[in-house]
Amino acid sequence: MDLTETMFTTPEMSAVFSAASQVQRMLDFEAALARAQAGAGLIPSEAAEAIAARCRAELFDLAALSHDAAVAGTPAIPLVRMLTGLLDGPARRFVHWGATSQDAMDTGMMLQTRDGLDLLAARLLDIAGVCAALAERHRHTPMAGRTLLQHAVPITFGLKAARWLALTTRLVRRLRDLRARGLAVQLGGAAGTLAALGQDGIRVTELLARELDLAAPALPWHAERDRVAEIAAIVGIVAGAMAKVATDMALLAQTEVGEASTRAPAGAARSSAMPHKRNPAAAITAIAAARLAMGTVPTLLAGLVQEHERAAGGWQAEWDALPRLFRLTAGAVEWVHRAVEGLEVDPARMRANLGLTDGLIMAEALMMALAPHLGRDEAYRVVQRASDRAAQTGTPLQKVAAADEQIRAALPPDRIERAFDVAGYLGSTDRFIDRALDDFRAVQLQQGAGGATG
Amino acid sequence: MDLTETMFTTPEMSAVFSAASQVQRMLDFEAALARAQAGAGLIPSEAAEAIAARCRAELFDLAALSHDAAVAGTPAIPLVRMLTGLLDGPARRFVHWGATSQDAMDTGMMLQTRDGLDLLAARLLDIAGVCAALAERHRHTPMAGRTLLQHAVPITFGLKAARWLALTTRLVRRLRDLRARGLAVQLGGAAGTLAALGQDGIRVTELLARELDLAAPALPWHAERDRVAEIAAIVGIVAGAMAKVATDMALLAQTEVGEASTRAPAGAARSSAMPHKRNPAAAITAIAAARLAMGTVPTLLAGLVQEHERAAGGWQAEWDALPRLFRLTAGAVEWVHRAVEGLEVDPARMRANLGLTDGLIMAEALMMALAPHLGRDEAYRVVQRASDRAAQTGTPLQKVAAADEQIRAALPPDRIERAFDVAGYLGSTDRFIDRALDDFRAVQLQQGAGGATG
Amino acid sequence: MDLTETMFTTPEMSAVFSAASQVQRMLDFEAALARAQAGAGLIPSEAAEAIAARCRAELFDLAALSHDAAVAGTPAIPLVRMLTGLLDGPARRFVHWGATSQDAMDTGMMLQTRDGLDLLAARLLDIAGVCAALAERHRHTPMAGRTLLQHAVPITFGLKAARWLALTTRLVRRLRDLRARGLAVQLGGAAGTLAALGQDGIRVTELLARELDLAAPALPWHAERDRVAEIAAIVGIVAGAMAKVATDMALLAQTEVGEASTRAPAGAARSSAMPHKRNPAAAITAIAAARLAMGTVPTLLAGLVQEHERAAGGWQAEWDALPRLFRLTAGAVEWVHRAVEGLEVDPARMRANLGLTDGLIMAEALMMALAPHLGRDEAYRVVQRASDRAAQTGTPLQKVAAADEQIRAALPPDRIERAFDVAGYLGSTDRFIDRALDDFRAVQLQQGAGGATG
Amino acid sequence: MDLTETMFTTPEMSAVFSAASQVQRMLDFEAALARAQAGAGLIPSEAAEAIAARCRAELFDLAALSHDAAVAGTPAIPLVRMLTGLLDGPARRFVHWGATSQDAMDTGMMLQTRDGLDLLAARLLDIAGVCAALAERHRHTPMAGRTLLQHAVPITFGLKAARWLALTTRLVRRLRDLRARGLAVQLGGAAGTLAALGQDGIRVTELLARELDLAAPALPWHAERDRVAEIAAIVGIVAGAMAKVATDMALLAQTEVGEASTRAPAGAARSSAMPHKRNPAAAITAIAAARLAMGTVPTLLAGLVQEHERAAGGWQAEWDALPRLFRLTAGAVEWVHRAVEGLEVDPARMRANLGLTDGLIMAEALMMALAPHLGRDEAYRVVQRASDRAAQTGTPLQKVAAADEQIRAALPPDRIERAFDVAGYLGSTDRFIDRALDDFRAVQLQQGAGGATG
Repeated sequence: MDLTETMFTTPEMSAVFSAASQVQRMLDFEAALARAQAGAGLIPSEAAEAIAARCRAELFDLAALSHDAAVAGTPAIPLVRMLTGLLDGPARRFVHWGATSQDAMDTGMMLQTRDGLDLLAARLLDIAGVCAALAERHRHTPMAGRTLLQHAVPITFGLKAARWLALTTRLVRRLRDLRARGLAVQLGGAAGTLAALGQDGIRVTELLARELDLAAPALPWHAERDRVAEIAAIVGIVAGAMAKVATDMALLAQTEVGEASTRAPAGAARSSAMPHKRNPAAAITAIAAARLAMGTVPTLLAGLVQEHERAAGGWQAEWDALPRLFRLTAGAVEWVHRAVEGLEVDPARMRANLGLTDGLIMAEALMMALAPHLGRDEAYRVVQRASDRAAQTGTPLQKVAAADEQIRAALPPDRIERAFDVAGYLGSTDRFIDRALDDFRAVQLQQGAGGATG
Repeated sequence: MDLTETMFTTPEMSAVFSAASQVQRMLDFEAALARAQAGAGLIPSEAAEAIAARCRAELFDLAALSHDAAVAGTPAIPLVRMLTGLLDGPARRFVHWGATSQDAMDTGMMLQTRDGLDLLAARLLDIAGVCAALAERHRHTPMAGRTLLQHAVPITFGLKAARWLALTTRLVRRLRDLRARGLAVQLGGAAGTLAALGQDGIRVTELLARELDLAAPALPWHAERDRVAEIAAIVGIVAGAMAKVATDMALLAQTEVGEASTRAPAGAARSSAMPHKRNPAAAITAIAAARLAMGTVPTLLAGLVQEHERAAGGWQAEWDALPRLFRLTAGAVEWVHRAVEGLEVDPARMRANLGLTDGLIMAEALMMALAPHLGRDEAYRVVQRASDRAAQTGTPLQKVAAADEQIRAALPPDRIERAFDVAGYLGSTDRFIDRALDDFRAVQLQQGAGGATG
Repeated sequence: MDLTETMFTTPEMSAVFSAASQVQRMLDFEAALARAQAGAGLIPSEAAEAIAARCRAELFDLAALSHDAAVAGTPAIPLVRMLTGLLDGPARRFVHWGATSQDAMDTGMMLQTRDGLDLLAARLLDIAGVCAALAERHRHTPMAGRTLLQHAVPITFGLKAARWLALTTRLVRRLRDLRARGLAVQLGGAAGTLAALGQDGIRVTELLARELDLAAPALPWHAERDRVAEIAAIVGIVAGAMAKVATDMALLAQTEVGEASTRAPAGAARSSAMPHKRNPAAAITAIAAARLAMGTVPTLLAGLVQEHERAAGGWQAEWDALPRLFRLTAGAVEWVHRAVEGLEVDPARMRANLGLTDGLIMAEALMMALAPHLGRDEAYRVVQRASDRAAQTGTPLQKVAAADEQIRAALPPDRIERAFDVAGYLGSTDRFIDRALDDFRAVQLQQGAGGATG
Repeated sequence: MDLTETMFTTPEMSAVFSAASQVQRMLDFEAALARAQAGAGLIPSEAAEAIAARCRAELFDLAALSHDAAVAGTPAIPLVRMLTGLLDGPARRFVHWGATSQDAMDTGMMLQTRDGLDLLAARLLDIAGVCAALAERHRHTPMAGRTLLQHAVPITFGLKAARWLALTTRLVRRLRDLRARGLAVQLGGAAGTLAALGQDGIRVTELLARELDLAAPALPWHAERDRVAEIAAIVGIVAGAMAKVATDMALLAQTEVGEASTRAPAGAARSSAMPHKRNPAAAITAIAAARLAMGTVPTLLAGLVQEHERAAGGWQAEWDALPRLFRLTAGAVEWVHRAVEGLEVDPARMRANLGLTDGLIMAEALMMALAPHLGRDEAYRVVQRASDRAAQTGTPLQKVAAADEQIRAALPPDRIERAFDVAGYLGSTDRFIDRALDDFRAVQLQQGAGGATG
């Protein structure tokens, strides 16, 4: 046990990728294979049922299996041996018939992946739900838009939440797409010919796929890991996106910004040295988990480079890297969920910060008011000059503008004043929020509609 | 100039991501923006046309622009300044109206990406074509299937080529999918509100998207880089897949294996020290380019973590990393194309190597012949024992088998003999080859059908 | 040419890794090899001098060489051919005698590396010099220390600069160490036996090393790239450290923090949309360059995994990745130098920010005043309670403390007051600054002393 | 528990980075801190001894601690709370005096790192010992040297083993260097000023360092992680080097090469489908573990980029990544040890393979024999032509050479014959082996001499 390991994942995702689950998923393969082969007339139905009846992880000694796996360099071979040992009579003869250890491991991994994708999608929808509520509630809460960590022009906090929402919605859609088209059984036998199944290989593959509700691939894919790399990439993108949202929250919680911070749960994260501190622990733990998760992607991408019909190292590295990616990404998602769920927004502070630059944040608004009269180019120069003057003299930009001859010549006083009205310079903010909400609701409905992703 | 830089890319992909192209693609954005705004009634049509008429890269001093970009920390700002400088009259007033520099750069990058994806897909189809021909021609050319770099069971070289083909076909499909759904214009203005366009932001976005034949996103995506990360991932998978194919070829070309090697082009890669050597230079250069390409993916994935409305570092790193990914992946694809195109296959050597183990490569076939009689488990033990004996005594496995009492008790002599017939132990090989070919042809046809992927 | 490529490097480092330099450095190897072999009596002195006289890059057609390199898959083979073509008479016979192309490329790369390390070390010393001045000047300028982006306890800006200084000083030391022990000639011939040199291989290696002022390794290292990986790691650490310093500066420049920002150079980085903005462009470009630089390290680390006596891909990838690492790291160093050199510090804003929490930043000071009386544990609880009250009621912590019965029972009023004196709660700040300065001066002196690293 | 996790590490290294060890190492810090403070007169000696007496991991509930760590986002805060809870009387007052949680965690990590480095160095010395024996034993066992996976010129297996030995020896040296200069206590307090220790911070740091036998750094290094990044880099280089050696072994074990393979331990890695296979499981598991290990390095390198005085994510990611790097690297080292220790070398097969090219492997030898007469350039052309003819006609090169007029004109028959004597074309092979052995013995002795690295 690692002291900090549980910090970066969730119990649910840990369960999906536990030793017991992995064993069960490989056994699910063995059971389904036996049934598929019975269906194809290759082995007796009774044998298939007897095999399937023993394919329960609780009948296996996981510690012994883990030990044997470390000696053998693979868990599948000792597992098949143990399963065979649980059987007698004719059934014993037909265990793992015509398959190779990678068939069991890859198919098992695909089943675990399916569960993992579902867990991620469900939690992301929870985050999206919170963000949707924030977007609605703060639709008209103005705040500074920031680029390169500098005030740019006003936005609303609703828009910021809508951006998080739109991002999260897209992630859910990608995970569902992947689930629908990216998962496939593996059945190739020793070198991908299914020679041991004679002429029945493809039929068995199809029955196997049906048993497990996975796709039947056109060919085995032992050494072509594009499916795995794609899973890794999409899940890695989820992790990275979580770090983006968490980074925003950590930045908003800065002492000097103070616009939003996460209520700490009872017992959490007070500094050991500083009794007053309220650390954005959820956001920060999310960032750490996300970085760790993204760190596994290159290893899985490099796993594409496999030798001949089955690999010498690249595949074996997946055994550790892919579960790890899911566990850590689940951790990142979970911490972001806690962070947004407990988020306390401070509209007053947002408004106060908007005023920090004494009107400079409205410089673009003033420029665009001038642009139809002076051209964008000249307007830019005029406003830059006025902004510099405002900054140097500590005068509000509006006052400088009202006194500037060139500006006064171009705009009547009330138009200058209007240029400094934050609510009047939000453009498509409202409609963008609507679009993000609409998109989210469409994704939510899709889910309700018959469990397409179930 | 770098001495080895041209080695790892192609002139075509270099052209797509050259300074001139990048400038042209940003100018395409400026021209389309002006026209979209004219279409929405925001700026005069004559101004839009005047702007569009100047949006030609050859009118710009690229060296000066590169210099100014290095000073300014961005190429878009000096570009807009130069474009404005080329205009006079009313048109001058409306250049880059309501947009921000990132709008031009991101949209330009999406246009370059589209071109880049098309180049990759086209060349991958060429590779697929060569592999399809190899799969047909060598459908019945037996060779050793190898797992963990050891002989496993027989396959045919046609099947190996079909695996490369299936992989390449899937890559083309992914690139087309990405092209169809992953590319979008960027238009958000300073902080994603399109405030400078008043209420017309979304309409202008839609017109802009139509002008450029890109998707109009629901919201701007300045700081949510999931689209870019997905592009990076899919292209990175192409690179990794190329390294897989190239690795197979380098391994087949080994002096001790010698089953296939690439005819060197005139003037190529003879060793400086060893006049006799015929290095698998194409495969090896492909591997190097692919590794370099994959190396850019983590940077682009990390680019997901951006601050607030526009990022402080992560976006800027994309400017270099994404073009680099395309250039290097194109190099990997190109070298694989050369390697497969010039591939000389040696069926005699394949057959000779099949015999290297004196029949041990048929051990599974013998086991599967015994399995219905002894059960898989017992058959495994019997054949392992026989294999060990064969290896230790240097006797062909078939001879050991014919002399083994337990085996003779289970199988008649002709069934033992049949177990050592390579052609009789290829399972679904033939049908797998058909499936890969079918799939490839479907993808080829799709392309013909109206050029949806252009 | 890439539009943004010059942005992320320096002309000096580009020159070190230009095609011309690479050619010159390989020619330096050829010249030194010839002289070493003449010294060992293997070839005539006149031949060696004639060869050396032609080893000047300006005699070579770089474009043709680059083209031939792309065909051959290596630049060394065409280079040797060209060099031979420049010679006649006996000298022609002895070009590249007993060497292999990798000998020339690796040794050339080591020479370029030496130049690259020197450039980095020199510029880092410049940064250190600026940081040292800042540390002195702002030794007593108090500011908020920040952990997890929250105010913690006070520090001084001098201490922050001293931390940058200490980091930079350690980097210089590492680069010098690496230069002193990490660089070695490569001479192994075709497969590392130096067979072509008969019994004179080691003697020639030693003379060659002396000629080039590099170390003579115990054995050739064609396929053992630990030296290269270590160079990559150390330079990558420089890049990462630059990103740390740049991140601090970008955070300090935030509109809400405003404690330090870099004076923009004439013509730089004003936003295209927002005329008022003063983006921390130098820091941000440094971050981007550093991320790109660090992105090359895994590729170079993976390059350790090479096949047999010379590699099939991993070595070739170095040709691109190592120069790139140096170029980008130089860019990161350069931009940090510009950022610190132009840094405008605002002590008033620092002091104002210190007051933002109404005394909460002194909570630890209060706790430590109470701890000798209550124990650390109880003091922590008492101060946490007082801090919560202060935050909830908007009362300064000092006032809450003065009114708190438990605190008053433990501390006299003047001791409470003293706990809120920032200058009195800086601990070892001053001495830490001294230590960083001392360390820097020692490194500076070392340089002066005979130029061992010069 | 993960089914395959134990496969990729060792029990010893797992123990160093177990929860119990981590707790003990943080408690070692707390005990040493208390003693150092007693030594500096800051706290009573009895308190220090009472604290130290409770600093035993077995007194702590690790499951509860792990749970609280996940809630708090850090294990140090709940640990200090638990430790305080174990004490009463005055000692209770002085627990964790003036320190921050990162001080305990970083120092604890450095202590674990020291143990980890020692374990790695010891096992690498074991590998080196085996390689040294192989180098001696096979000093004169000729085999093909291979570059780009092609036969190049002859080497001996002793030389190959010596290259592995030299690499491993350099790794040990790097680990020892790192241990001697790279490890330092962390003591900075809340924001690196040690304010809570008044004027005694530096003295306490020095006493603390002495207690723990670690270096006292010039300044705290909470947010400057160059030390950690360097540790990561050096350990990552060990992992990569292991993959190099393992790759060589996997390639040598190929069915077609068969020059060396590892005796499988009882119960290991027989294929589930193919009873005859002898997979190079140890080498392959080493490769997988090494790839996973190297995959953690970029995360740790990225951890350099930390915010202000203490980081928001980058540091937290180290908690998982650094232990993981050590565990996986230990796994890679262990599997390489098993692979070399059980290596069965087949000199007959080596000699047979040498003959595979019918003398082409001696082409360079022939060229070098001709070179003094024809010049290197012309000799290259002549031998290339002869090699092409030999390859095309299936004639041994020696026979072609003996019949070639230009060659006969230049060389007497016995000189031609001599050019095909493998033993006569090994150059400095023997001396290179000696040098590797000498270097290894020096490193071995260093260890014996007083346990400088112990």
